[in-house]
Amino acid sequence: MRVGVLTGGSDCPGLNAALRAIVRKGVQEYGDDFVGFRDGWRGVMRDETVTLDIPAVRGTLPRGGTILGSSRTNPFQEDEGADRVLGTLARHGVEGLIVIGGTATLGIAARFAEEHGVPLVGVPKTIDNDIPLTDYTVGFDTAVGVATETIDRLHTTAESHKRVLVVEVMGRSAGWIALHAGLAGGANCILIPEQPFSVGKVCEWVESRFRATYAPIVVIADSALPTPDEIALPGVTPLPGSESRFRLSGVGEWLGKEIERRTGKESRTTVLGYIQRGGSPSPFDRWLATRFGLHAIDAVHEGDWGSMTALRSTRITRVRLAEATASLKTVDPELYREASVFFG
Amino acid sequence: MRVGVLTGGSDCPGLNAALRAIVRKGVQEYGDDFVGFRDGWRGVMRDETVTLDIPAVRGTLPRGGTILGSSRTNPFQEDEGADRVLGTLARHGVEGLIVIGGTATLGIAARFAEEHGVPLVGVPKTIDNDIPLTDYTVGFDTAVGVATETIDRLHTTAESHKRVLVVEVMGRSAGWIALHAGLAGGANCILIPEQPFSVGKVCEWVESRFRATYAPIVVIADSALPTPDEIALPGVTPLPGSESRFRLSGVGEWLGKEIERRTGKESRTTVLGYIQRGGSPSPFDRWLATRFGLHAIDAVHEGDWGSMTALRSTRITRVRLAEATASLKTVDPELYREASVFFG
Amino acid sequence: MRVGVLTGGSDCPGLNAALRAIVRKGVQEYGDDFVGFRDGWRGVMRDETVTLDIPAVRGTLPRGGTILGSSRTNPFQEDEGADRVLGTLARHGVEGLIVIGGTATLGIAARFAEEHGVPLVGVPKTIDNDIPLTDYTVGFDTAVGVATETIDRLHTTAESHKRVLVVEVMGRSAGWIALHAGLAGGANCILIPEQPFSVGKVCEWVESRFRATYAPIVVIADSALPTPDEIALPGVTPLPGSESRFRLSGVGEWLGKEIERRTGKESRTTVLGYIQRGGSPSPFDRWLATRFGLHAIDAVHEGDWGSMTALRSTRITRVRLAEATASLKTVDPELYREASVFFG
Amino acid sequence: MRVGVLTGGSDCPGLNAALRAIVRKGVQEYGDDFVGFRDGWRGVMRDETVTLDIPAVRGTLPRGGTILGSSRTNPFQEDEGADRVLGTLARHGVEGLIVIGGTATLGIAARFAEEHGVPLVGVPKTIDNDIPLTDYTVGFDTAVGVATETIDRLHTTAESHKRVLVVEVMGRSAGWIALHAGLAGGANCILIPEQPFSVGKVCEWVESRFRATYAPIVVIADSALPTPDEIALPGVTPLPGSESRFRLSGVGEWLGKEIERRTGKESRTTVLGYIQRGGSPSPFDRWLATRFGLHAIDAVHEGDWGSMTALRSTRITRVRLAEATASLKTVDPELYREASVFFG
Repeated sequence: MRVGVLTGGSDCPGLNAALRAIVRKGVQEYGDDFVGFRDGWRGVMRDETVTLDIPAVRGTLPRGGTILGSSRTNPFQEDEGADRVLGTLARHGVEGLIVIGGTATLGIAARFAEEHGVPLVGVPKTIDNDIPLTDYTVGFDTAVGVATETIDRLHTTAESHKRVLVVEVMGRSAGWIALHAGLAGGANCILIPEQPFSVGKVCEWVESRFRATYAPIVVIADSALPTPDEIALPGVTPLPGSESRFRLSGVGEWLGKEIERRTGKESRTTVLGYIQRGGSPSPFDRWLATRFGLHAIDAVHEGDWGSMTALRSTRITRVRLAEATASLKTVDPELYREASVFFG
Repeated sequence: MRVGVLTGGSDCPGLNAALRAIVRKGVQEYGDDFVGFRDGWRGVMRDETVTLDIPAVRGTLPRGGTILGSSRTNPFQEDEGADRVLGTLARHGVEGLIVIGGTATLGIAARFAEEHGVPLVGVPKTIDNDIPLTDYTVGFDTAVGVATETIDRLHTTAESHKRVLVVEVMGRSAGWIALHAGLAGGANCILIPEQPFSVGKVCEWVESRFRATYAPIVVIADSALPTPDEIALPGVTPLPGSESRFRLSGVGEWLGKEIERRTGKESRTTVLGYIQRGGSPSPFDRWLATRFGLHAIDAVHEGDWGSMTALRSTRITRVRLAEATASLKTVDPELYREASVFFG
Repeated sequence: MRVGVLTGGSDCPGLNAALRAIVRKGVQEYGDDFVGFRDGWRGVMRDETVTLDIPAVRGTLPRGGTILGSSRTNPFQEDEGADRVLGTLARHGVEGLIVIGGTATLGIAARFAEEHGVPLVGVPKTIDNDIPLTDYTVGFDTAVGVATETIDRLHTTAESHKRVLVVEVMGRSAGWIALHAGLAGGANCILIPEQPFSVGKVCEWVESRFRATYAPIVVIADSALPTPDEIALPGVTPLPGSESRFRLSGVGEWLGKEIERRTGKESRTTVLGYIQRGGSPSPFDRWLATRFGLHAIDAVHEGDWGSMTALRSTRITRVRLAEATASLKTVDPELYREASVFFG
Repeated sequence: MRVGVLTGGSDCPGLNAALRAIVRKGVQEYGDDFVGFRDGWRGVMRDETVTLDIPAVRGTLPRGGTILGSSRTNPFQEDEGADRVLGTLARHGVEGLIVIGGTATLGIAARFAEEHGVPLVGVPKTIDNDIPLTDYTVGFDTAVGVATETIDRLHTTAESHKRVLVVEVMGRSAGWIALHAGLAGGANCILIPEQPFSVGKVCEWVESRFRATYAPIVVIADSALPTPDEIALPGVTPLPGSESRFRLSGVGEWLGKEIERRTGKESRTTVLGYIQRGGSPSPFDRWLATRFGLHAIDAVHEGDWGSMTALRSTRITRVRLAEATASLKTVDPELYREASVFFG
C-alpha cells in the first residue's frame, strides 16, 4: 500500500519516534511504501517530498524535532490549496495518509476527510495536551519534564536570595503544562488560563510563603490572565498586546513587576519558551509516540478513515478526528482545586 | 484526626512526594496530626516513630528515598508481630493508617484490614509496576527513565565497537520496566519473565541486526528465563542459583556469554541494579505520588477502609486492597507482540 | 580556632560543597569551630548568624544555592558599615574569616584585609568566570552545562521550523559562558562583550548557514553590544535602556528582531536567565568547590591572610586577593578567533 | 593537503567532536581533504576507509561514539602489519595522519613516527585520564559525570534501607574516575589501584558512618586491590581471576560480600561498566575535544610530527607522543590524602 505521512504545527519531541514506528511496521508487516511530505500540509500543497524508509528513520527514536520538517500552513487558506493537496495525493497514488499534528493540523485533516473523502488517520501531538478524547498527546510529558527541571533549578536561587521567582511556561489555551510542572516542581501557586487570577491573592500567597521561611515560585501559563477588574486597576499598566481579550503578552514579566510593586519583594521572571519543545523525547513520549505510530498504520490498513489514535488508560484506542478537533481539552476545575492545597 | 503513615518494601522515587501531599492536605484541610512509623511495618511492630509534620516534609518533593525509612519486615512472620502492631496503633491512638508500599507491604495491610479491622488505606508504589487495578505505580516512570537513559548511552558504544550489549533491568516477576525501557530505548529485543525466550531466536535477531549495520542491544528483565529446553541444552551451564525454577541469577551475564559463544560476536552485559530505584522522581512520579497522597488522606476522612488509591486514565480512583494484592499484574501478551515489530 | 564563613553575591552551584569541605576539614583535622554569617556581608554587618557545623552541612554537597544565604550588600556603602563588621567579628572572637564570593564580595574582602587587617582568605565563585589568576571559578562549569543543554534542545526546533534561534546567556562583563556553551552546543555564531559585533556579519552567517541546509543558532552574552555604528543605524531602534554605553538591555530580543527584519527569516529569542545559576552543581564544580574549601581552611591555619584559592592546571594554588580583584578576566581575542572557524 | 584520521581503542564521548573540529578547520582554513580510516589501526592495515568531509561530521558534536568506528588492533602484532599500514598510507597519498586514542593507540603511533617516519600527530582520549603531560583526556569528564550521577542516585536507597552500597567504576590502571566521582558524589571512602586498601579499615569507615546516622557508599576502581595480606587472609576467598597480581576481577562484588561478612551490615554492589563510556559528551569534553581537534590540524600544517595535543591550565599545548606514552599518569598520593578527610 502507498502511504503518505506528514507532521504539522509546532514541532515537539516524539515526532520521529512516531514516524519510525509507522515505517518499521508498515514496511515489515504490511509491505507498504511511504511518501513523506515536507513541512506539513505545505509540502502536500507544493508536492515536496522527503524519502521515508527504514534507513531514513534509523537512529531517530531519541531525536527531537521531525525529519519531515513542519509548518503551520493551512491549505484551506491558500489559493486552490485544497485542490493542490488533492492533486499531489493523486499524483503519488497515496492510498492512505497519516497526519501527525495538533489541533490545527488535525482540524485540516478532519476537513479533508469529511469534505473531500481523503483516506486519512490522525495522530495527536502537542506539548499543550489540549486535544480531547486522549489522556495525553505526544510531546506533553517531555515539556513537563523540561519545565519541572527548570523549577527545580530555580528553587535554590529563590532560597538563597529570598526572591519571588515567576516562571512562565507554554500553554496556548490550556494550563496543562503549568498544572503538571507546577505540581511536580513544588510551585507556590499555579496560574492557568482556565482560571482568571487575582494578583492580590497571588501576593497573599507570596507573603505567606515568605513567612513560612521559604521563597515562593509562581508558575504561570503564558495565556493566563488576571481577572478583568485587575487589568482595569489604576496602578496596573498591562504590557503592549494586552488589548487582546485572550492574551496578555509577557504576562509573566508583568506579574513579576506587579508582585514586586505590591509586596516590595524582589521578583524575577524566567520565560521558558522554545526549550519546552526541543530535545530528546522522554521515555513516556517515546513509548506513546511509538504506540500511536504502530496503531496508526494498523488503522490505515483497516481503512478506519477519519479516526485518530488516542490513549485511554494504558490502551491505544481510536476516536473520531472530527470530534477530537471540535473543541479543546482544558483543565478541569476540580483538578485545579485539588492542586490548590499547595498554594501559599 | 490522628493518622499514622508508613512506607514499606524496597524504596523508590516518589515516596516523599506522597508523604508531603498527605501531610500538607491533612494538616491544612483536615487539621490532622500525624505519626510516622520508622522503616515500614517494623517500626509499627517496635513502636519506633519519626516526626511527620509540615516542616518535616518541606523540600522533600524532589528527593528520592523516604524520610520514614523502609524495611521488608512482615509482622505476621514475627513473634506476636500482629499483636505488637495493634498495640502500637492503639497506644498512639491511630484512627487511620496510610500504608505506602508494594505487593508485600500492601498484602500485609490487607490482612490487618480484613482480619483485625485496622482502619487503613493503601497507596501502591513499586518500580516493578506489577500491582493490578492501577495503570501505574509510584516509582515505575522514574525507573523506566533511568533504564532508558542507560540504553541511550550504550548505543554509541555498541556502534563503535560492533558489540552486542545486554542490559539487565529489574522486574521481580513482571517485565514492565524491560518492555517500556526497551521500547523507548530502541532495543533489538526485549526479554521478559512472562515469555520464556529462545537463545537461538535471540541470536538470530542479533545477527540480522548486525547485517543491517547496527549493533544490537538486548534488554532483559532479571527474572526472564530461557525456555526449559534451552536450560537443559548440553552446552549451557547455568550460573549457580539456576536450580530455582523461577529465576536464573545473573541471567543477563549468562545470556551475554551464550550469545558470544553461539554467534562469535563480542558481547558485554550491564546490570542496572539499584540505580533504578534511586534519585529524584520523574515529574510523572511526583504528580502521581502527590495525587495518590491527596486522595489517600481523603479516603481516610471518608473512612473508606481497605481501599487503595489507583490511577485509571487521568483520574485517581479507589480499588479494594484485597483485590489489588491478590495477584500480580503481568505484561499482556498482546502488548509484547506489539513491541516485537522492533525485534531483530 | 574560631573561623567565620560567609557567601556573598549572586548564588551559584557549588557554594554548599565549599562550605561542607571547610567544615569537615576544619572540625576533623583542626578542631575548629565555626560561625556562619547570614546573607553575605550583610549578616556580618548586622550580626546575623547561622549554625555551621558537621550536621548542618550533611547532605548539602549536591545541593545548589547556599545554606548561609547571600546578598550583595557592601558594608563600605552603609552607615558605619565597616565598623559594624569589625565589631561583629570581634564579638564572635573570629580568628580567621573565609569569604566565598565573586569580584564584588571578594573586593570588599580585599579592602577589609588591607585597610583593617581582618585575617581572611577568599574563595572565588561566579558563573561568569571573570576572576583573574584562576583557571575557573566555582559555578562556571554548571552554568555552561545548563546553557549547552538548552542549545542542544533548541537545535531540533530550529531544524524543524527553519528558524533562527537566538539564545541569550549570562555574562555581566565577560563572554565566558557564551564562548564555552556556544562551542559545546555547536552555535553558528557567538557574540561576546569583548568583541562588538556587526549585525550585518551575523546576518551573513545566518544566511550562509541556511544555504548549508542547517538552521542557525546564535549565542549571545547579555552584555554583548553591536558596534557603535550599528546602534546609530537609521533602521535600528534599540530597546529602552540602550542609552547605557555598556549594556543593551534585552540585546538578544533586539538582535532576533534585527535578524528577522534584515534577512526575512523567522527568528525567536530564548533568554536563559536564572536557570543558569540554579540546581545541582556539576561534578567538576563539586570537585573544585570541595578542593577550594579544603585549601581555604589550610590557608586560615597557615595565617596566609589576604590570599585567595585558585586553580592552576590541576593544582590548587594561592594568589593575592588584591590582585585577583583588581581587574576582570575577559576572553582572550585569540580564543575567540579560534572558535570563529565554526561561525557561519 | 591530504590528511588521514583514525580513532582507536575503547570508544569514549568526544571523539566525534574532535573529528568535526579537524574537518571543519582543515577544509575551511587549509583546503585539506580527508581520508577516514575505519576501526582504528585495523582500517589502516586493511585499507578500509570512511568518508570524512563536512557533511559527514554535521550534527555529530553531541553524539557519543565515533563515526569512524574503533578497535584495539595493534599492527605491530599482526603479520606484516606495519608494512601494510605504510602501504595504505602511501596508496592514499596521506601527507599527515591524526591519531586519536589512548595509551595503546598512541603508543603505536609513537612507534610509527619514530621507527618509520610516519608524519603524524596524536590526540589523547580515554575515560581513564591516565595519559601524562595533559591535565585531562577527552572522555574523562563525561565518565566522571555518569559515575557521579549514579552515586547521587544510590544515596537515597542507601539511606532508606541502611545498607552499604559499593560502586565499582572503571579505571584500568589509575583511580582518576573513582577519585573525582567519589569526591563529587560524597562517597564514604574511595579505593584506587594506586593505594592498596585494607578491608578492615574500610569496615571501620563503614561502621563509623552508620553511627553518624548516614548509610555509607564505597567507591572502588575496578583495578583496586586489597593489601597482599588481606588477600591471603583465611576467611578471604578471592573470585576466580585474582591469581593475577594486578587485578581482582569483580573486586566490587567481592568487597561488598567481605563488608557484609565482617560488619553484618547488608551490602549491595553496583558495577557501572560501559555506561561510563557512552552517551553524549559533557560540555567540557566537547570543548576539550573541539580544541584538541583544531590544534591537531594546526600541528599537521606546521609539520610538528610526533607531537600530541595537551591541555595545560586553559591552554592547548603540544608535548612529545613518545614521552606521553612512556608511562601512565596515576593519582598523586597527596591528592588522595587530601580526599581522605571525607572517609569514614
